[in-house]
Amino acid sequence: MPALYRQIEKEVEMAYLNDICDDLTSKSFSQIPPEAVETAKRALIDYFAVTIAGSQHPDLQGVARLSAAKNSTRNAALLGTQLRASPDYAALHNGFAAHIYDYDDYSIINHPTAPVAPAAFSIAESLGGSGQEVLRSYLLAGEAMYRIGRQCLPFTSDQGWHTTGVFGVLGASVAAGLSTRLPADEIAAALGIAASEASGLRGNFGSPVKPLHCGMAARTGIWCAELAKAGLRPSAGIIEGLDGFFQLFGGLAPDTVTYSSSQTWSILDPGFNFKRYACCSSMGSALDALLESDEIAGLNPADIVAVDVGQSPWSYNELIYHSPSRVTETKFSMEYAVAAALTFRRASVEVFNDEAFLNNPAIGPLMERVRTRVDDELATRNFTADAPVKIDITLENGRSIHLSRDFAKGNVRNPLTEDELLQKYRSLVVPVLGDDRSEELLSGLLQLEQVEDVTALLRF
Amino acid sequence: MPALYRQIEKEVEMAYLNDICDDLTSKSFSQIPPEAVETAKRALIDYFAVTIAGSQHPDLQGVARLSAAKNSTRNAALLGTQLRASPDYAALHNGFAAHIYDYDDYSIINHPTAPVAPAAFSIAESLGGSGQEVLRSYLLAGEAMYRIGRQCLPFTSDQGWHTTGVFGVLGASVAAGLSTRLPADEIAAALGIAASEASGLRGNFGSPVKPLHCGMAARTGIWCAELAKAGLRPSAGIIEGLDGFFQLFGGLAPDTVTYSSSQTWSILDPGFNFKRYACCSSMGSALDALLESDEIAGLNPADIVAVDVGQSPWSYNELIYHSPSRVTETKFSMEYAVAAALTFRRASVEVFNDEAFLNNPAIGPLMERVRTRVDDELATRNFTADAPVKIDITLENGRSIHLSRDFAKGNVRNPLTEDELLQKYRSLVVPVLGDDRSEELLSGLLQLEQVEDVTALLRF
Repeated sequence: MPALYRQIEKEVEMAYLNDICDDLTSKSFSQIPPEAVETAKRALIDYFAVTIAGSQHPDLQGVARLSAAKNSTRNAALLGTQLRASPDYAALHNGFAAHIYDYDDYSIINHPTAPVAPAAFSIAESLGGSGQEVLRSYLLAGEAMYRIGRQCLPFTSDQGWHTTGVFGVLGASVAAGLSTRLPADEIAAALGIAASEASGLRGNFGSPVKPLHCGMAARTGIWCAELAKAGLRPSAGIIEGLDGFFQLFGGLAPDTVTYSSSQTWSILDPGFNFKRYACCSSMGSALDALLESDEIAGLNPADIVAVDVGQSPWSYNELIYHSPSRVTETKFSMEYAVAAALTFRRASVEVFNDEAFLNNPAIGPLMERVRTRVDDELATRNFTADAPVKIDITLENGRSIHLSRDFAKGNVRNPLTEDELLQKYRSLVVPVLGDDRSEELLSGLLQLEQVEDVTALLRF
Repeated sequence: MPALYRQIEKEVEMAYLNDICDDLTSKSFSQIPPEAVETAKRALIDYFAVTIAGSQHPDLQGVARLSAAKNSTRNAALLGTQLRASPDYAALHNGFAAHIYDYDDYSIINHPTAPVAPAAFSIAESLGGSGQEVLRSYLLAGEAMYRIGRQCLPFTSDQGWHTTGVFGVLGASVAAGLSTRLPADEIAAALGIAASEASGLRGNFGSPVKPLHCGMAARTGIWCAELAKAGLRPSAGIIEGLDGFFQLFGGLAPDTVTYSSSQTWSILDPGFNFKRYACCSSMGSALDALLESDEIAGLNPADIVAVDVGQSPWSYNELIYHSPSRVTETKFSMEYAVAAALTFRRASVEVFNDEAFLNNPAIGPLMERVRTRVDDELATRNFTADAPVKIDITLENGRSIHLSRDFAKGNVRNPLTEDELLQKYRSLVVPVLGDDRSEELLSGLLQLEQVEDVTALLRF
C-alpha cells in the first residue's frame, strides 16, 4: 500500500533561517544581559571541569590520537591533554570529553554546552578571539538551538532521537559561524546545512557513542560553517518547509511554524541545570532524595524488601538498563542508582564508572528488589527536564519510607552555589592539571569577558 | 499530553550487527559470482565518469580547497583534480562530486555507489590495496547497506529522509572497515556507530546539500571505521533494538527484525540502474518517452495546449519544484524536464545545469501548461525505483498524444549496452583528463580485478 502523496509544494522561499540569523547576529555583546553572561560563565566553568576530567577517560585516548594525527594545522587544544589539533578535531575531542561522564549541564531541550562550547572555543583559539566573542557565540548559538529545539519537543525525544546530537549540530554550526565572524547569510547557510547533518540515536545511550554525538555535532557544526563560507547554500525552507528539520525531528507540519524573536534568554528562563552526579539527569532527584534523607542514613540494605520508584514517562524512557551489565550502562539505570545510593551512601564519579561498584555483591540482589514505573500523576505534568520522582521503600519490619523530589539540586530553581560549582570544578580539574594551572584557568574563566585572546587561557 | 512510555526494555544483547558482519566478512573475493563483479565494474566506471565530471562543478571548488588544506597526510586523490587529501576528505570530495550532477547510478533503496565507492577507493589508495580488495569492499558494503535499507523502505523516503544519506553512511562504514582490513567485530562496531550518524533531509533536494549528503556519508563512514579500530563500541542492539536504526528510519517495532543471510546479490537482483540524464531518476522514463517518440519529433511546442503527466506517488514526491527558479532545482522538476525535452529535443548535462536553458523564453510558458499528478493506477504498484510515467499531450488542433513508460533505458531490465556505458564515460571524462589518461583509467577499471595496487590507477 503506497503512502499518500503530499499536497504541499515547494514554491515559496521561506525565511526561517534568515529571520533567526538576522535576529541573532544583530545582538552585540553589550546587548546581552549581565545575568545571562554570568550564567554562561558558570556553564563554561562547568564545561571545562567535566571536559578536562573526561579527557582522562580510556575511551578518549583513541579519539585524541586520531584527532591529533589527522591535521596539518594544530592550533586548538584537546582540553586536558598536551595535544593540539585543527579546530574541528579539537571540537570533536572536547565535545566527546565533555559528555563522556554525563556530568555536564542540561536544559529543557538537551545538553546545551557540550556540543556548542567546543565549537566556539576551538574557532576562537584558531583566530585569537576574545572572551567576549566566545561568550557571545556561545550564548547566541544556544538561543538559536533552543528556539528551534523547543518547538520540536517532546516529539524528538519520544521518537527515539538523542536531542543533544540532533539539536547540538545546529548550535555548533551557529557558534562556529559567529566565531568565524561570518555575515548573517552565511550563518544561516551553516545552520541550514547542519539541519541535514542532524543525527543521533537514543539506542546508543549506555555506550560511548552517546557522548560521541556531542563531539560529532561540534565537529560537523564547524564543517558546516566552513562550507557556508565556501559558498554552499541549503534549500531556503530546510528548517520549516516540506521534508525539513521541523517535519522530521519535530513532527510539525511544513510551513506551520514561523520565527518569532524573543527577549528572553533560555539560559535564564527556563534556565540551565548543573549536575551533582555523573549520570543521567533523570536520576538526579532520586539520588538527592536518597542521599539527603535522615531516614535512609541508618538503614541496612539487607532490611529492604522492596523499593518502588515512580517516574515521569520521560525519565522512565531514558533509563533503559534495568539490570546493567556494563559500567557505561549504570548511568542509565535507576535500579542501579537506587541500589548504589542505599549501599554506598554516595554517588561519586567512581560509582558510575568503576566496575568495582557494579560488581559489589550487595548490588545485584538489591537491584532486583527495585521496581521502576511510570507514575500516573507525574505523567500528567508537561514535558520537563526536572525528572520528578516518588520513592517508596518497604522494610522487612513492615515500615515504609516515602520520599519525593520534584527536581535535583543544581536545577535552575535550586541552583548550585558558587562554592559548590567551584568545588565541582576543582575536584575534577586539579587531578589533571594540578593546583596552579587549575586556579589559573579558573581565574581566566571567572573573568572571561575581560580576556582579550583566549589562546593564552587555553595553553596547557 | 505526555506520550505513552514504552514497555520494551533493553535487556537482551541483540545480534544483528554481528550476524551481518560475520556473514559478509566470511565471503572471499573468489566466492563472489563473476556477474556481480562484472556489474560492479560497470558501476565503478560510471562512478568515475560522473565523479570526474562532477569535480569540475563550481560547487566543488571550495570543497576541494577545504579538503586539501585540512590534512597532513595526503595520500588519496580528489578525483578529477591534481589535489590529494587524507582518505576521509578525499572520500568527502569524491562522494560530493559523484552526486553533484545527479547522474550516478541508483538502486531500489538509494544511490548505492556515490557514498560507498569513495570510501572503498580512498582507503585502498592509502593502504596500497588491490583491485580485488576494492571490488570486494564495494560489493559487500553494498550488500550490508541493502539488507538494512530494504527493510526500511518506503517508510524512510515517505517520512522525508534522503535515503542515500541515511543508508549511505552505513555502506561507507562497512566499505571503510573492509578496506582497512578490520576484523568482523570491528566492522560491526563501525556499522553501529554509523547508525547513529545517519542523516540527510529530503528538503535539501534541489540544493548542493543533497550531493553533500553522499560526501558526508563517505567521510563519516571512514571516521566510524577509525573509531571502531580505536576501540569504540556502540550499543549491541543499535540497528534492531529500542530507539535504534530500524525504529527511527524504518518505522519498525524494536526486535521484530532478525538478520537473514541471502544468496542473492542486490547489484544483480533487484539490480542497479544507470542514468542517461543528469537529473532525478524520477524523470528518466518521461524523458525517454518524449525524446524517443516519432510523434513528438515534429511538434511545434507552441501548438501544445496541455501536457498531463501521471506519476507514482514516489516520483511525485521527489519532484518538488513545479516552477524552478534556480538551475539546481531543474533536476527535480518534471514540468521543466518535459518543457525542455519538447523545446530542445535533448536532455544533455547542460539542459539541467546551464541557466541559458532555464532562461530560454519558451520554457516558462510551456512549463505552465504541464500538469503533474499522481496516477491512481501507478499508485497501486509497489514501491519501486522504476518511476513509471503516463504522458498525455493535447494539441491546439484537438489531437492528443499518449505516451507511457514503465522504466527508463538504463534500468536493470533494459540496461545500457557496453558501448553506451563507455560513451557516457568518455563524454564525461575526456574533457577533464584528455584522451590518453581517460583511456588508461578506463582500461584499468575494465580489468580492475587484475590491478595489484589501485594507487597507480588513481595517479592523475
